[in-house]
Amino acid sequence: MKITVLSGGVGGARFTRGLLALLRDRLPDGRGGTTAEVTVVANTGDDMWLHGVRVCPDLDTLMYTLGGAVHEDQGWGRRDESSRVSADLAAYDVGWEWFTLGDLDLATHLARTQWLHEGLTLSEATERLTRRWDLAAQGVRLLPMSDQPVETHVVVDDPERLIHFEEWWVRHRAALPARRFEQVGLATASAALGVLDALADADVVVLPPSNPVVSVGTVLAVPGVRAALASTSAAVVGVSPIVGGAPVRGMAAECLATIGVDATAEAVARHYGLRGDRTRPADAPGVLDAWLVDTVDADAATALAADGWRAAATGTLMHDVPETARIAAAALALVGR
Amino acid sequence: MKITVLSGGVGGARFTRGLLALLRDRLPDGRGGTTAEVTVVANTGDDMWLHGVRVCPDLDTLMYTLGGAVHEDQGWGRRDESSRVSADLAAYDVGWEWFTLGDLDLATHLARTQWLHEGLTLSEATERLTRRWDLAAQGVRLLPMSDQPVETHVVVDDPERLIHFEEWWVRHRAALPARRFEQVGLATASAALGVLDALADADVVVLPPSNPVVSVGTVLAVPGVRAALASTSAAVVGVSPIVGGAPVRGMAAECLATIGVDATAEAVARHYGLRGDRTRPADAPGVLDAWLVDTVDADAATALAADGWRAAATGTLMHDVPETARIAAAALALVGR
Repeated sequence: MKITVLSGGVGGARFTRGLLALLRDRLPDGRGGTTAEVTVVANTGDDMWLHGVRVCPDLDTLMYTLGGAVHEDQGWGRRDESSRVSADLAAYDVGWEWFTLGDLDLATHLARTQWLHEGLTLSEATERLTRRWDLAAQGVRLLPMSDQPVETHVVVDDPERLIHFEEWWVRHRAALPARRFEQVGLATASAALGVLDALADADVVVLPPSNPVVSVGTVLAVPGVRAALASTSAAVVGVSPIVGGAPVRGMAAECLATIGVDATAEAVARHYGLRGDRTRPADAPGVLDAWLVDTVDADAATALAADGWRAAATGTLMHDVPETARIAAAALALVGR
Repeated sequence: MKITVLSGGVGGARFTRGLLALLRDRLPDGRGGTTAEVTVVANTGDDMWLHGVRVCPDLDTLMYTLGGAVHEDQGWGRRDESSRVSADLAAYDVGWEWFTLGDLDLATHLARTQWLHEGLTLSEATERLTRRWDLAAQGVRLLPMSDQPVETHVVVDDPERLIHFEEWWVRHRAALPARRFEQVGLATASAALGVLDALADADVVVLPPSNPVVSVGTVLAVPGVRAALASTSAAVVGVSPIVGGAPVRGMAAECLATIGVDATAEAVARHYGLRGDRTRPADAPGVLDAWLVDTVDADAATALAADGWRAAATGTLMHDVPETARIAAAALALVGR
């Protein structure tokens, strides 16, 4: 079975870890992995250059989470992290006190930067980084959505200016009202090698409970991705990141408000759109067949089902890996897998 | 009094620290510094890009030594250094096991790289870095020899190839026979703003006991520097890095052999050349008036004096700061200061 996941950081990484646990159980390869082939396409819109090194927050969160190196409580960054370098940078009045640049995480950035300077693509650099964390042995391949730099910026007021998404998200905790998001480089970016094939050839495509605007939304906006989803023979299922009218984690509500979408499980589904829905604009076809919501949002599932969606409700809080595997199973079941 | 020092790393840094101690004693400014103005022009030929960050070994050794942050036993790098980042880089199979990239040192490189990317010159970035270490309060200004990248490479055999000076020096401990040195970028580089003025306006120019080939030699080879030294009204005095036929520290003998100069105090002086010596080629005028050698090389001083040099012998081993201050005093005395 081939499964492709379009992911942001923490939520998508935790979901994918549960999915892999499920697949190891259902389709074991006899060596501790799975015969299923999982491709994770990561949002790279949060990437940035910092002190000359390339930082890729979502790729790294995915890599650390799937590789067993993540700081579990935090959800991102490395376990046993330290901040010798950033403390010394601060003594030079350099760096942002709101941005954590851990020593171990920095090693990842430096290795990636070295390879990018040697002429490797981001995909190739990512593949090299993941070798250390044995992702291939787990049956999972990690791809950036694009090898071209795409950076999400946020237009804010007083004064009107463009700030990097990470500054808006981490420094301002998304509390600074955002007029709109600008994805610098997106219009001319192309999907990384393998991304469109992974959508066309998949049996199932999953939109995990990642931010629907600045994570999955950015991946969907890469030229060719939405069309590939609209036309793939794979079943496409999403898991709602909104539970009871609020995101489980993070500040998706602020992002949804910025683009005029209600922070409800149903509104997010309708924003993604049902595949084959001819009432949608031609340049933004629907991308989902199925939508899994939390038990508290059972009404949303009922309403969507009435409109032709495959929809169901279950507990969707990813407390631990076994529970997340169960949620992944519920998502696959929704599309008959 | 204005003193300009043309310096490499460890030897030049230790000499300059002793010189500053002498000047604080002789020409105190009442605030713990000196009224003397010392300009240190650093070799930047050892600089390199490493994992996307700019490493400037001699500038940093000077900054840490004069700023009281140096690892004293080692002579370079930071006190209380650690290697969290480089150990993690090694787990990615990135980095050189022979090259120490300390965590605190890395912060310096990242800060510099940030500023270089923001458009600052290396001089400006250096000035910002030195603020933290209060060099200005000590009456000392640190300049790179050039704001253009200049990188010393070494042509070695079997197979014939070009390797970065740091690889030859640190990894191979200069034991790999060198055919010649190639200073990439040097011919088209210009002296950094302030360097030529610091030579023209000085009362005394000092060539400290740094490597005469790859440190001071590189500074002298920056277009305009040798001519400025030949024509300055300052007295120019050097301290021999060779004591009893061998360098006190480092592998200067191998460097001297590569350019066909004997590793003796006298040969190095004659290689630098006496100012006004009309037997020298027009494009390589002599740069020294005076030469201080170690007591064991007293014969060299006698021989040079017979040829019109101001030369003297004294103990030149820089055991500690007071002893180094005494050596600096002997150098200044040789030119009547």
